[in-house]
Amino acid sequence: MHTVVQMLKTYPKDLGNIDTTKLTKAIQTLAECAQACTACADACLSEDRVADLTKCIRSNLDCADACSATANILSRHTGYDANITRTFLEACATTCKACGDECARHADMHEHCRVCADACRACEQACRDLLANLG
Amino acid sequence: MHTVVQMLKTYPKDLGNIDTTKLTKAIQTLAECAQACTACADACLSEDRVADLTKCIRSNLDCADACSATANILSRHTGYDANITRTFLEACATTCKACGDECARHADMHEHCRVCADACRACEQACRDLLANLG
Amino acid sequence: MHTVVQMLKTYPKDLGNIDTTKLTKAIQTLAECAQACTACADACLSEDRVADLTKCIRSNLDCADACSATANILSRHTGYDANITRTFLEACATTCKACGDECARHADMHEHCRVCADACRACEQACRDLLANLG
Amino acid sequence: MHTVVQMLKTYPKDLGNIDTTKLTKAIQTLAECAQACTACADACLSEDRVADLTKCIRSNLDCADACSATANILSRHTGYDANITRTFLEACATTCKACGDECARHADMHEHCRVCADACRACEQACRDLLANLG
Repeated sequence: MHTVVQMLKTYPKDLGNIDTTKLTKAIQTLAECAQACTACADACLSEDRVADLTKCIRSNLDCADACSATANILSRHTGYDANITRTFLEACATTCKACGDECARHADMHEHCRVCADACRACEQACRDLLANLG
Repeated sequence: MHTVVQMLKTYPKDLGNIDTTKLTKAIQTLAECAQACTACADACLSEDRVADLTKCIRSNLDCADACSATANILSRHTGYDANITRTFLEACATTCKACGDECARHADMHEHCRVCADACRACEQACRDLLANLG
Repeated sequence: MHTVVQMLKTYPKDLGNIDTTKLTKAIQTLAECAQACTACADACLSEDRVADLTKCIRSNLDCADACSATANILSRHTGYDANITRTFLEACATTCKACGDECARHADMHEHCRVCADACRACEQACRDLLANLG
Repeated sequence: MHTVVQMLKTYPKDLGNIDTTKLTKAIQTLAECAQACTACADACLSEDRVADLTKCIRSNLDCADACSATANILSRHTGYDANITRTFLEACATTCKACGDECARHADMHEHCRVCADACRACEQACRDLLANLG
Protein backbone atom coordinates (compact mmCIF):
# COMPACT_ATOMS: atom_id res chain seq x y z
CA MET A 1 0.00 0.00 0.00
CA HIS A 2 2.65 2.43 -1.14
CA THR A 3 0.03 5.00 -2.20
CA VAL A 4 -0.22 6.02 1.47
CA VAL A 5 3.37 7.28 1.20
CA GLN A 6 2.75 8.97 -2.13
CA MET A 7 -0.36 10.74 -0.87
CA LEU A 8 1.55 12.07 2.14
CA LYS A 9 4.45 13.23 -0.06
CA THR A 10 2.14 15.08 -2.45
CA TYR A 11 0.09 16.79 0.26
CA PRO A 12 0.14 20.47 -0.76
CA LYS A 13 0.62 22.00 2.69
CA ASP A 14 2.93 21.46 5.64
CA LEU A 15 2.05 18.35 7.68
CA GLY A 16 3.39 19.87 10.91
CA ASN A 17 5.64 17.99 13.28
CA ILE A 18 4.03 14.61 12.85
CA ASP A 19 6.38 11.67 12.21
CA THR A 20 5.29 10.66 8.70
CA THR A 21 6.91 7.22 8.98
CA LYS A 22 4.81 6.43 12.05
CA LEU A 23 1.75 8.00 10.43
CA THR A 24 2.22 5.91 7.28
CA LYS A 25 2.68 2.78 9.34
CA ALA A 26 -0.48 3.53 11.33
CA ILE A 27 -2.65 4.15 8.25
CA GLN A 28 -1.39 1.00 6.51
CA THR A 29 -1.76 -1.17 9.60
CA LEU A 30 -5.24 0.15 10.33
CA ALA A 31 -6.40 -0.70 6.80
CA GLU A 32 -4.84 -4.15 7.09
CA CYS A 33 -6.42 -4.78 10.50
CA ALA A 34 -9.86 -3.58 9.36
CA GLN A 35 -9.79 -6.05 6.47
CA ALA A 36 -8.45 -8.90 8.62
CA CYS A 37 -11.22 -8.34 11.17
CA THR A 38 -13.95 -8.27 8.52
CA ALA A 39 -12.55 -11.49 7.05
CA CYS A 40 -12.09 -13.13 10.47
CA ALA A 41 -15.71 -12.41 11.45
CA ASP A 42 -16.76 -14.15 8.27
CA ALA A 43 -14.35 -17.06 8.72
CA CYS A 44 -15.71 -17.54 12.27
CA LEU A 45 -19.22 -17.68 10.79
CA SER A 46 -18.04 -20.57 8.62
CA GLU A 47 -16.70 -22.61 11.54
CA ASP A 48 -18.76 -25.61 12.61
CA ARG A 49 -18.52 -24.40 16.19
CA VAL A 50 -19.63 -20.85 15.42
CA ALA A 51 -21.62 -20.82 18.68
CA ASP A 52 -18.30 -20.66 20.57
CA LEU A 53 -17.14 -17.70 18.53
CA THR A 54 -19.93 -15.14 18.85
CA LYS A 55 -17.97 -12.84 21.16
CA CYS A 56 -15.02 -13.09 18.76
CA ILE A 57 -17.22 -12.12 15.80
CA ARG A 58 -18.60 -9.13 17.67
CA SER A 59 -15.06 -8.03 18.62
CA ASN A 60 -14.02 -8.39 14.98
CA LEU A 61 -16.90 -6.23 13.78
CA ASP A 62 -16.26 -3.52 16.37
CA CYS A 63 -12.56 -3.55 15.56
CA ALA A 64 -13.19 -3.28 11.81
CA ASP A 65 -15.39 -0.22 12.40
CA ALA A 66 -12.85 1.33 14.77
CA CYS A 67 -9.91 0.80 12.41
CA SER A 68 -11.76 2.07 9.33
CA ALA A 69 -12.87 5.28 11.06
CA THR A 70 -9.40 5.88 12.51
CA ALA A 71 -7.68 5.25 9.16
CA ASN A 72 -9.96 7.85 7.57
CA ILE A 73 -9.31 10.40 10.30
CA LEU A 74 -5.53 9.88 10.02
CA SER A 75 -5.74 10.36 6.25
CA ARG A 76 -6.95 13.95 6.71
CA HIS A 77 -4.64 16.86 7.61
CA THR A 78 -6.60 19.99 6.67
CA GLY A 79 -7.44 21.96 9.83
CA TYR A 80 -5.70 19.29 11.89
CA ASP A 81 -7.02 18.79 15.42
CA ALA A 82 -4.68 16.76 17.62
CA ASN A 83 -7.45 16.11 20.17
CA ILE A 84 -9.52 14.17 17.68
CA THR A 85 -6.52 12.20 16.42
CA ARG A 86 -5.48 11.36 19.96
CA THR A 87 -8.90 10.28 21.20
CA PHE A 88 -9.44 8.05 18.16
CA LEU A 89 -6.00 6.46 18.41
CA GLU A 90 -6.74 5.67 22.06
CA ALA A 91 -10.21 4.29 21.31
CA CYS A 92 -8.81 2.23 18.45
CA ALA A 93 -5.90 0.87 20.50
CA THR A 94 -8.41 -0.22 23.19
CA THR A 95 -10.55 -1.97 20.59
CA CYS A 96 -7.55 -3.65 18.90
CA LYS A 97 -6.32 -4.86 22.30
CA ALA A 98 -9.73 -6.39 23.08
CA CYS A 99 -10.03 -8.01 19.66
CA GLY A 100 -6.43 -9.25 19.71
CA ASP A 101 -7.01 -10.84 23.13
CA GLU A 102 -10.23 -12.47 22.01
CA CYS A 103 -8.77 -13.81 18.76
CA ALA A 104 -5.68 -15.06 20.61
CA ARG A 105 -7.96 -17.27 22.73
CA HIS A 106 -8.91 -19.21 19.58
CA ALA A 107 -5.58 -18.98 17.77
CA ASP A 108 -4.65 -22.60 18.50
CA MET A 109 -7.85 -23.92 16.97
CA HIS A 110 -8.43 -21.41 14.20
CA GLU A 111 -5.61 -20.19 11.98
CA HIS A 112 -7.65 -17.15 10.85
CA CYS A 113 -7.92 -16.05 14.48
CA ARG A 114 -4.13 -16.33 14.80
CA VAL A 115 -3.56 -14.18 11.70
CA CYS A 116 -6.17 -11.68 12.88
CA ALA A 117 -4.73 -11.54 16.40
CA ASP A 118 -1.35 -10.65 14.88
CA ALA A 119 -2.96 -7.91 12.78
CA CYS A 120 -4.70 -6.53 15.89
CA ARG A 121 -1.46 -6.56 17.93
CA ALA A 122 0.43 -4.78 15.16
CA CYS A 123 -2.36 -2.23 14.84
CA GLU A 124 -2.56 -1.58 18.58
CA GLN A 125 1.22 -1.02 18.56
CA ALA A 126 1.12 1.31 15.55
CA CYS A 127 -1.62 3.38 17.24
CA ARG A 128 0.39 3.59 20.47
CA ASP A 129 3.60 4.50 18.61
CA LEU A 130 1.86 7.35 16.85
CA LEU A 131 0.21 8.46 20.10
CA ALA A 132 3.64 8.60 21.77
CA ASN A 133 4.90 10.72 18.89
CA LEU A 134 1.98 13.15 19.24
CA GLY A 135 3.09 13.80 22.81
CA MET B 1 -36.17 5.72 13.11
CA HIS B 2 -38.41 3.63 15.30
CA THR B 3 -36.73 0.40 14.15
CA VAL B 4 -33.94 1.14 16.66
CA VAL B 5 -36.52 0.61 19.42
CA GLN B 6 -37.94 -2.50 17.79
CA MET B 7 -34.51 -4.05 17.33
CA LEU B 8 -33.70 -3.47 21.00
CA LYS B 9 -37.08 -4.92 22.11
CA THR B 10 -36.61 -8.05 20.02
CA TYR B 11 -33.02 -8.68 21.10
CA PRO B 12 -32.99 -12.33 22.21
CA LYS B 13 -30.80 -11.97 25.30
CA ASP B 14 -30.64 -9.72 28.33
CA LEU B 15 -29.24 -6.28 27.53
CA GLY B 16 -27.80 -5.87 31.02
CA ASN B 17 -28.23 -2.73 33.09
CA ILE B 18 -27.98 -0.30 30.19
CA ASP B 19 -30.68 2.40 30.02
CA THR B 20 -32.37 1.45 26.74
CA THR B 21 -34.02 4.86 26.39
CA LYS B 22 -30.62 6.56 26.48
CA LEU B 23 -29.15 3.88 24.22
CA THR B 24 -31.95 4.34 21.69
CA LYS B 25 -31.53 8.10 21.79
CA ALA B 26 -27.77 7.77 21.26
CA ILE B 27 -28.08 5.42 18.28
CA GLN B 28 -30.74 7.59 16.61
CA THR B 29 -28.86 10.82 17.24
CA LEU B 30 -25.58 9.36 15.98
CA ALA B 31 -27.20 8.26 12.72
CA GLU B 32 -28.79 11.68 12.34
CA CYS B 33 -25.52 13.50 13.05
CA ALA B 34 -23.53 11.29 10.67
CA GLN B 35 -25.94 12.12 7.85
CA ALA B 36 -26.05 15.84 8.71
CA CYS B 37 -22.24 16.00 8.70
CA THR B 38 -21.96 14.20 5.35
CA ALA B 39 -24.55 16.59 3.90
CA CYS B 40 -22.97 19.67 5.50
CA ALA B 41 -19.54 18.83 4.06
CA ASP B 42 -21.18 18.66 0.65
CA ALA B 43 -23.19 21.86 1.16
CA CYS B 44 -19.98 23.65 2.17
CA LEU B 45 -18.39 22.41 -1.08
CA SER B 46 -21.21 24.15 -2.94
CA GLU B 47 -20.69 27.50 -1.25
CA ASP B 48 -19.05 30.23 -3.35
CA ARG B 49 -16.66 30.88 -0.50
CA VAL B 50 -15.67 27.23 -0.04
CA ALA B 51 -12.08 28.35 0.63
CA ASP B 52 -13.24 29.72 4.01
CA LEU B 53 -14.88 26.42 4.91
CA THR B 54 -12.14 23.83 4.47
CA LYS B 55 -11.63 23.27 8.19
CA CYS B 56 -15.39 22.92 8.58
CA ILE B 57 -15.54 20.30 5.81
CA ARG B 58 -12.74 18.34 7.40
CA SER B 59 -14.50 18.45 10.79
CA ASN B 60 -17.70 17.28 9.13
CA LEU B 61 -15.97 14.31 7.51
CA ASP B 62 -14.25 13.26 10.74
CA CYS B 63 -17.50 13.61 12.65
CA ALA B 64 -19.44 11.54 10.10
CA ASP B 65 -16.86 8.74 10.44
CA ALA B 66 -16.88 8.96 14.23
CA CYS B 67 -20.66 8.87 14.49
CA SER B 68 -21.09 6.01 12.01
CA ALA B 69 -18.55 3.84 13.79
CA THR B 70 -20.02 4.62 17.21
CA ALA B 71 -23.59 3.93 16.03
CA ASN B 72 -22.46 0.53 14.78
CA ILE B 73 -20.64 -0.30 18.00
CA LEU B 74 -23.70 0.70 20.09
CA SER B 75 -25.91 -1.51 17.91
CA ARG B 76 -24.01 -4.63 19.03
CA HIS B 77 -24.56 -6.30 22.39
CA THR B 78 -23.16 -9.83 22.00
CA GLY B 79 -20.20 -10.21 24.31
CA TYR B 80 -20.68 -6.60 25.37
CA ASP B 81 -17.48 -4.82 26.40
CA ALA B 82 -18.13 -1.58 28.33
CA ASN B 83 -14.53 -0.41 27.77
CA ILE B 84 -15.01 -0.24 24.02
CA THR B 85 -18.39 1.45 24.32
CA ARG B 86 -17.00 4.00 26.76
CA THR B 87 -13.89 4.86 24.78
CA PHE B 88 -15.88 5.31 21.57
CA LEU B 89 -18.54 7.45 23.24
CA GLU B 90 -15.76 9.68 24.58
CA ALA B 91 -13.99 9.89 21.22
CA CYS B 92 -17.26 10.62 19.49
CA ALA B 93 -18.30 13.30 22.00
CA THR B 94 -14.92 15.00 21.47
CA THR B 95 -15.38 14.92 17.71
CA CYS B 96 -19.00 16.17 17.89
CA LYS B 97 -17.90 19.02 20.18
CA ALA B 98 -15.17 20.07 17.72
CA CYS B 99 -17.49 19.85 14.71
CA GLY B 100 -20.35 21.63 16.52
CA ASP B 101 -17.99 24.47 17.49
CA GLU B 102 -16.66 24.76 13.94
CA CYS B 103 -20.11 24.70 12.33
CA ALA B 104 -21.39 27.22 14.90
CA ARG B 105 -18.76 29.67 13.66
CA HIS B 106 -20.48 29.72 10.25
CA ALA B 107 -24.06 29.34 11.44
CA ASP B 108 -24.94 32.97 10.82
CA MET B 109 -23.85 32.83 7.20
CA HIS B 110 -24.78 29.26 6.32
CA GLU B 111 -28.06 27.70 7.40
CA HIS B 112 -26.73 24.17 6.78
CA CYS B 113 -23.96 24.82 9.29
CA ARG B 114 -26.57 25.93 11.83
CA VAL B 115 -28.60 22.75 11.32
CA CYS B 116 -25.45 20.64 11.48
CA ALA B 117 -24.18 22.42 14.61
CA ASP B 118 -27.48 21.57 16.31
CA ALA B 119 -27.17 17.93 15.26
CA CYS B 120 -23.60 17.82 16.64
CA ARG B 121 -24.63 19.40 19.96
CA ALA B 122 -27.51 16.93 20.34
CA CYS B 123 -25.19 14.05 19.50
CA GLU B 124 -22.48 15.16 21.92
CA GLN B 125 -25.15 15.37 24.63
CA ALA B 126 -26.60 11.95 23.82
CA CYS B 127 -23.11 10.41 23.99
CA ARG B 128 -22.41 12.08 27.34
CA ASP B 129 -25.81 11.04 28.74
CA LEU B 130 -25.15 7.43 27.84
CA LEU B 131 -21.61 7.65 29.23
CA ALA B 132 -22.99 8.94 32.55
CA ASN B 133 -25.40 6.00 32.61
CA LEU B 134 -22.57 3.50 32.02
CA GLY B 135 -20.91 4.81 35.19
CA MET C 1 -34.59 12.08 11.19
CA HIS C 2 -35.97 15.43 10.18
CA THR C 3 -32.47 16.85 9.72
CA VAL C 4 -32.37 15.11 6.32
CA VAL C 5 -35.14 17.48 5.21
CA GLN C 6 -33.47 20.51 6.75
CA MET C 7 -30.14 19.74 5.12
CA LEU C 8 -31.82 19.45 1.71
CA LYS C 9 -33.73 22.71 2.25
CA THR C 10 -30.58 24.61 3.20
CA TYR C 11 -28.46 23.28 0.35
CA PRO C 12 -26.94 26.39 -1.24
CA LYS C 13 -27.30 25.41 -4.89
CA ASP C 14 -30.03 24.05 -7.11
CA LEU C 15 -30.69 20.33 -6.55
CA GLY C 16 -31.78 19.82 -10.17
CA ASN C 17 -34.91 17.89 -11.09
CA ILE C 18 -34.64 15.27 -8.37
CA ASP C 19 -37.81 14.59 -6.36
CA THR C 20 -36.69 15.72 -2.91
CA THR C 21 -39.51 13.84 -1.17
CA LYS C 22 -38.32 10.56 -2.70
CA LEU C 23 -34.70 11.50 -2.02
CA THR C 24 -35.47 12.27 1.64
CA LYS C 25 -37.36 9.01 2.00
CA ALA C 26 -34.48 7.07 0.45
CA ILE C 27 -31.81 8.61 2.71
CA GLN C 28 -33.90 8.07 5.85
CA THR C 29 -34.83 4.52 4.92
CA LEU C 30 -31.25 3.62 4.03
CA ALA C 31 -30.00 4.86 7.41
CA GLU C 32 -32.77 2.93 9.15
CA CYS C 33 -32.05 -0.26 7.20
CA ALA C 34 -28.29 -0.03 7.80
CA GLN C 35 -28.88 0.18 11.54
CA ALA C 36 -31.48 -2.60 11.53
CA CYS C 37 -29.10 -4.91 9.63
CA THR C 38 -26.20 -4.19 11.99
CA ALA C 39 -28.48 -4.90 14.95
CA CYS C 40 -30.02 -8.00 13.33
CA ALA C 41 -26.59 -9.51 12.66
CA ASP C 42 -25.80 -9.05 16.33
CA ALA C 43 -29.18 -10.38 17.49
CA CYS C 44 -28.65 -13.48 15.31
CA LEU C 45 -25.26 -13.94 17.02
CA SER C 46 -27.14 -14.07 20.34
CA GLU C 47 -29.53 -16.80 19.22
CA ASP C 48 -28.92 -20.28 20.62
CA ARG C 49 -29.19 -21.66 17.10
CA VAL C 50 -26.74 -19.20 15.59
CA ALA C 51 -25.38 -21.99 13.38
CA ASP C 52 -28.63 -21.85 11.37
CA LEU C 53 -28.28 -18.11 10.88
CA THR C 54 -24.81 -17.64 9.41
CA LYS C 55 -26.05 -16.82 5.91
CA CYS C 56 -28.51 -14.35 7.44
CA ILE C 57 -25.71 -12.64 9.39
CA ARG C 58 -23.60 -12.34 6.28
CA SER C 59 -26.53 -10.86 4.34
CA ASN C 60 -27.11 -8.40 7.19
CA LEU C 61 -23.48 -7.28 7.13
CA ASP C 62 -23.42 -6.85 3.36
CA CYS C 63 -26.70 -4.96 3.45
CA ALA C 64 -25.49 -2.64 6.23
CA ASP C 65 -22.41 -1.78 4.13
CA ALA C 66 -24.48 -1.29 0.99
CA CYS C 67 -27.03 0.97 2.70
CA SER C 68 -24.42 3.08 4.51
CA ALA C 69 -22.44 3.72 1.31
CA THR C 70 -25.60 4.52 -0.67
CA ALA C 71 -26.93 6.87 2.03
CA ASN C 72 -23.64 8.77 1.91
CA ILE C 73 -23.65 8.99 -1.87
CA LEU C 74 -27.26 10.26 -1.89
CA SER C 75 -26.34 12.90 0.70
CA ARG C 76 -23.93 14.56 -1.74
CA HIS C 77 -25.09 16.81 -4.59
CA THR C 78 -22.00 18.81 -5.58
CA GLY C 79 -20.91 17.76 -9.05
CA TYR C 80 -23.83 15.34 -9.16
CA ASP C 81 -23.32 12.28 -11.37
CA ALA C 82 -26.55 10.40 -12.11
CA ASN C 83 -24.62 7.30 -13.26
CA ILE C 84 -23.11 6.79 -9.82
CA THR C 85 -26.40 7.39 -8.04
CA ARG C 86 -28.18 4.97 -10.35
CA THR C 87 -25.64 2.16 -10.13
CA PHE C 88 -25.56 2.40 -6.33
CA LEU C 89 -29.33 2.46 -6.01
CA GLU C 90 -29.47 -0.67 -8.17
CA ALA C 91 -26.72 -2.44 -6.23
CA CYS C 92 -28.37 -1.47 -2.95
CA ALA C 93 -31.84 -2.61 -4.06
CA THR C 94 -30.33 -5.99 -5.04
CA THR C 95 -28.67 -6.31 -1.65
CA CYS C 96 -31.80 -5.25 0.26
CA LYS C 97 -33.86 -7.77 -1.72
CA ALA C 98 -31.44 -10.58 -0.86
CA CYS C 99 -31.28 -9.62 2.81
CA GLY C 100 -35.05 -9.12 3.07
CA ASP C 101 -35.62 -12.57 1.55
CA GLU C 102 -33.11 -14.17 3.90
CA CYS C 103 -34.50 -12.47 7.01
CA ALA C 104 -38.06 -13.32 5.96
CA ARG C 105 -37.11 -17.00 6.08
CA HIS C 106 -36.50 -16.67 9.83
CA ALA C 107 -39.22 -14.11 10.60
CA ASP C 108 -41.51 -16.66 12.21
CA MET C 109 -38.88 -17.79 14.67
CA HIS C 110 -37.02 -14.55 15.27
CA GLU C 111 -38.82 -11.26 15.75
CA HIS C 112 -35.66 -9.27 14.98
CA CYS C 113 -35.51 -10.92 11.55
CA ARG C 114 -39.12 -9.90 10.95
CA VAL C 115 -38.38 -6.27 11.85
CA CYS C 116 -35.23 -6.33 9.75
CA ALA C 117 -37.00 -7.93 6.77
CA ASP C 118 -39.53 -5.08 6.89
CA ALA C 119 -36.73 -2.51 6.96
CA CYS C 120 -35.07 -4.21 3.97
CA ARG C 121 -38.32 -4.31 1.97
CA ALA C 122 -38.98 -0.63 2.69
CA CYS C 123 -35.43 0.22 1.70
CA GLU C 124 -35.54 -1.77 -1.52
CA GLN C 125 -38.77 0.04 -2.40
CA ALA C 126 -37.37 3.48 -1.57
CA CYS C 127 -34.33 2.77 -3.78
CA ARG C 128 -36.53 1.63 -6.67
CA ASP C 129 -38.87 4.63 -6.27
CA LEU C 130 -35.95 7.01 -6.50
CA LEU C 131 -34.50 5.08 -9.44
CA ALA C 132 -37.81 5.41 -11.29
CA ASN C 133 -37.73 9.14 -10.63
CA LEU C 134 -34.19 9.46 -12.02
CA GLY C 135 -35.48 8.02 -15.31
CA MET D 1 -1.26 -6.05 2.80
CA HIS D 2 -0.30 -9.70 2.80
CA THR D 3 -2.89 -10.52 5.47
CA VAL D 4 -5.52 -10.57 2.71
CA VAL D 5 -3.75 -13.64 1.33
CA GLN D 6 -3.40 -15.25 4.74
CA MET D 7 -7.05 -14.71 5.58
CA LEU D 8 -8.11 -16.34 2.31
CA LYS D 9 -5.73 -19.28 2.89
CA THR D 10 -7.05 -19.89 6.40
CA TYR D 11 -10.73 -19.65 5.45
CA PRO D 12 -12.30 -22.80 6.94
CA LYS D 13 -14.61 -23.69 4.06
CA ASP D 14 -14.33 -24.06 0.30
CA LEU D 15 -14.17 -20.70 -1.50
CA GLY D 16 -15.82 -22.12 -4.62
CA ASN D 17 -14.53 -21.46 -8.10
CA ILE D 18 -13.44 -17.90 -7.50
CA ASP D 19 -9.93 -16.98 -8.69
CA THR D 20 -8.28 -16.16 -5.36
CA THR D 21 -5.44 -14.25 -7.03
CA LYS D 22 -7.92 -11.89 -8.68
CA LEU D 23 -9.95 -11.71 -5.47
CA THR D 24 -6.86 -10.84 -3.43
CA LYS D 25 -5.84 -8.21 -5.94
CA ALA D 26 -9.33 -6.69 -5.90
CA ILE D 27 -9.51 -6.50 -2.08
CA GLN D 28 -6.03 -4.97 -1.82
CA THR D 29 -6.62 -2.48 -4.61
CA LEU D 30 -10.00 -1.45 -3.21
CA ALA D 31 -8.45 -0.72 0.20
CA GLU D 32 -5.65 1.22 -1.45
CA CYS D 33 -8.06 3.23 -3.62
CA ALA D 34 -10.37 4.01 -0.69
CA GLN D 35 -7.47 5.46 1.26
CA ALA D 36 -6.08 7.37 -1.73
CA CYS D 37 -9.50 8.93 -2.37
CA THR D 38 -9.95 9.95 1.28
CA ALA D 39 -6.47 11.49 1.23
CA CYS D 40 -6.99 13.15 -2.17
CA ALA D 41 -10.24 14.80 -1.02
CA ASP D 42 -8.31 16.23 1.91
CA ALA D 43 -5.35 17.31 -0.23
CA CYS D 44 -7.77 19.08 -2.60
CA LEU D 45 -9.21 20.90 0.44
CA SER D 46 -5.72 22.21 1.16
CA GLU D 47 -5.17 23.59 -2.34
CA ASP D 48 -5.36 27.37 -2.69
CA ARG D 49 -7.69 26.90 -5.63
CA VAL D 50 -10.04 24.52 -3.82
CA ALA D 51 -13.00 26.20 -5.55
CA ASP D 52 -11.89 24.54 -8.81
CA LEU D 53 -11.78 21.13 -7.15
CA THR D 54 -15.19 20.70 -5.56
CA LYS D 55 -16.41 18.15 -8.09
CA CYS D 56 -13.16 16.25 -7.64
CA ILE D 57 -13.62 16.19 -3.86
CA ARG D 58 -17.16 14.89 -4.21
CA SER D 59 -15.97 12.15 -6.62
CA ASN D 60 -13.24 11.23 -4.15
CA LEU D 61 -15.71 10.90 -1.28
CA ASP D 62 -18.15 8.80 -3.30
CA CYS D 63 -15.31 6.59 -4.53
CA ALA D 64 -13.96 6.09 -1.00
CA ASP D 65 -17.41 4.95 0.16
CA ALA D 66 -17.86 2.69 -2.86
CA CYS D 67 -14.45 1.04 -2.47
CA SER D 68 -14.79 0.52 1.30
CA ALA D 69 -18.20 -1.12 0.97
CA THR D 70 -17.04 -3.32 -1.92
CA ALA D 71 -13.85 -4.38 -0.09
CA ASN D 72 -15.99 -5.45 2.87
CA ILE D 73 -18.42 -7.39 0.69
CA LEU D 74 -15.54 -9.18 -1.09
CA SER D 75 -14.04 -10.11 2.28
CA ARG D 76 -17.12 -12.21 3.14
CA HIS D 77 -17.72 -15.68 1.73
CA THR D 78 -20.26 -17.30 4.08
CA GLY D 79 -23.48 -17.89 2.15
CA TYR D 80 -21.83 -16.31 -0.87
CA ASP D 81 -24.22 -14.56 -3.25
CA ALA D 82 -22.69 -13.85 -6.68
CA ASN D 83 -25.46 -11.34 -7.51
CA ILE D 84 -24.43 -9.03 -4.70
CA THR D 85 -20.74 -9.35 -5.53
CA ARG D 86 -21.40 -8.67 -9.20
CA THR D 87 -23.64 -5.65 -8.70
CA PHE D 88 -21.18 -4.08 -6.26
CA LEU D 89 -18.20 -4.69 -8.51
CA GLU D 90 -20.09 -2.99 -11.35
CA ALA D 91 -21.15 -0.04 -9.19
CA CYS D 92 -17.64 0.31 -7.86
CA ALA D 93 -16.02 0.13 -11.32
CA THR D 94 -18.41 2.89 -12.48
CA THR D 95 -17.48 5.06 -9.50
CA CYS D 96 -13.73 4.42 -9.92
CA LYS D 97 -13.99 5.32 -13.62
CA ALA D 98 -15.72 8.61 -12.82
CA CYS D 99 -13.26 9.49 -10.06
CA GLY D 100 -10.25 8.46 -12.14
CA ASP D 101 -11.46 10.66 -15.02
CA GLU D 102 -12.08 13.60 -12.71
CA CYS D 103 -8.70 13.29 -10.96
CA ALA D 104 -6.92 12.89 -14.32
CA ARG D 105 -8.25 16.32 -15.31
CA HIS D 106 -6.17 17.86 -12.50
CA ALA D 107 -3.21 15.50 -12.64
CA ASP D 108 -0.93 18.02 -14.35
CA MET D 109 -1.47 20.61 -11.67
CA HIS D 110 -1.86 18.42 -8.60
CA GLU D 111 0.40 15.45 -7.97
CA HIS D 112 -2.05 13.95 -5.45
CA CYS D 113 -4.70 13.85 -8.17
CA ARG D 114 -2.26 12.00 -10.43
CA VAL D 115 -1.52 9.41 -7.73
CA CYS D 116 -5.22 9.07 -6.96
CA ALA D 117 -6.16 8.77 -10.64
CA ASP D 118 -3.69 5.87 -10.93
CA ALA D 119 -5.22 4.20 -7.86
CA CYS D 120 -8.71 4.60 -9.34
CA ARG D 121 -7.65 3.16 -12.72
CA ALA D 122 -6.02 0.18 -11.03
CA CYS D 123 -9.10 -0.36 -8.91
CA GLU D 124 -11.50 -0.13 -11.82
CA GLN D 125 -9.37 -2.71 -13.65
CA ALA D 126 -9.20 -5.05 -10.65
CA CYS D 127 -13.01 -4.88 -10.30
CA ARG D 128 -13.50 -5.64 -14.01
CA ASP D 129 -10.96 -8.49 -13.92
CA LEU D 130 -12.81 -10.11 -11.04
CA LEU D 131 -16.16 -9.52 -12.73
CA ALA D 132 -14.88 -11.28 -15.88
CA ASN D 133 -13.79 -14.19 -13.72
CA LEU D 134 -17.23 -14.45 -12.07
CA GLY D 135 -18.71 -14.95 -15.54
